Amino acid sequence: MAILQLTIIPIGTSTPNLGDYILSIQKRLSSMGVTFALNDMGTLIEGEVTELLQLVMALYETPFEEGAVRVVTQITIDDRRDKKIKIGDKIQSVISRSVSPELITNHD
Amino acid sequence: MAILQLTIIPIGTSTPNLGDYILSIQKRLSSMGVTFALNDMGTLIEGEVTELLQLVMALYETPFEEGAVRVVTQITIDDRRDKKIKIGDKIQSVISRSVSPELITNHD
Amino acid sequence: MAILQLTIIPIGTSTPNLGDYILSIQKRLSSMGVTFALNDMGTLIEGEVTELLQLVMALYETPFEEGAVRVVTQITIDDRRDKKIKIGDKIQSVISRSVSPELITNHD
Amino acid sequence: MAILQLTIIPIGTSTPNLGDYILSIQKRLSSMGVTFALNDMGTLIEGEVTELLQLVMALYETPFEEGAVRVVTQITIDDRRDKKIKIGDKIQSVISRSVSPELITNHD
Repeated sequence: MAILQLTIIPIGTSTPNLGDYILSIQKRLSSMGVTFALNDMGTLIEGEVTELLQLVMALYETPFEEGAVRVVTQITIDDRRDKKIKIGDKIQSVISRSVSPELITNHD
Repeated sequence: MAILQLTIIPIGTSTPNLGDYILSIQKRLSSMGVTFALNDMGTLIEGEVTELLQLVMALYETPFEEGAVRVVTQITIDDRRDKKIKIGDKIQSVISRSVSPELITNHD
Repeated sequence: MAILQLTIIPIGTSTPNLGDYILSIQKRLSSMGVTFALNDMGTLIEGEVTELLQLVMALYETPFEEGAVRVVTQITIDDRRDKKIKIGDKIQSVISRSVSPELITNHD
Repeated sequence: MAILQLTIIPIGTSTPNLGDYILSIQKRLSSMGVTFALNDMGTLIEGEVTELLQLVMALYETPFEEGAVRVVTQITIDDRRDKKIKIGDKIQSVISRSVSPELITNHD
């Protein structure tokens, strides 16, 4: 069981605002029936690694279809074979070791 | 104004569980008076870039002090000079473009 | 045409030396008939992106087969649709803009 | 002793060609008296980590001074306290374990 972080950076877009590209990715992702969570650096997706890599393949062309001519795609996979991992586990791990919920975030 | 993602990966730790290292980082971070949010791939921190890089320097030795002999540290900085950015903006950007909150996450 | 950087970080290996894992990856890669180059942060591989992602899938299990129970895999893809790119292009690009070869490296 | 990989990605540049930005970075870097090597995904720099992070601070504003309004900067640091590491070590490590130089690269 693994967690994958996907970050897509279109280059040479004339505008520094990439929100439309992200929206296109999220629309496809939400139709795929997987567990995911968007953050400011990318989207976390959980699942078996074979499924996750096929999902990356299925999403990969999205920014090019939106008009990008160059895209840097970054994928980080954290894969454990000794236990199941899922989105939110790291937060739970810190909570279980500490009595201070403010170690997770002080963001509103 | 910038957002920085910090990920610390101790290598050769004999256990695949890195929760104690993460807890040490979060304890120091929460005492520093900055805005941050932990996720499964790292910790997001917002601020001016000079402040953020000094903060990385201040946190950097933590896993070595906990006993690690080799650490891979990954830092990604998204820095805009055309507008202020803060943690949560990307989520707000997708929400403002869409009527579907399920584009953000379907994670519980 | 794209360039992919693949970095594999086994976690909880008891030794901080990962050379045996890298050797296993390079052995498989060299039998695959693709163009690649190892550096200190990972291996660059060039090709069409579909081919590159299938290659990642084919290599992915290698460190687990060598005994790792947790692996962080990092993949960065630089993909351009406006021109062909291949390994060494960035160096050539800097050389063509400058008369100073020492801008590339001062490493022996 | 550590190796740092620095990658700078200007966003919203209207052109997908980033060679001028890379050239500016390399010019500054080569005047700093450190050991470095450019590759297709970034620049490797070796040194003590305090020195490396100060160097990143000194280079950081370069793409903004060249006109970029948004830049994604990626920094990966591999830091060992059990032995000295320098650029080229990973290649030497694979060579020392193998009789096949073609495991390093088949790139011309």
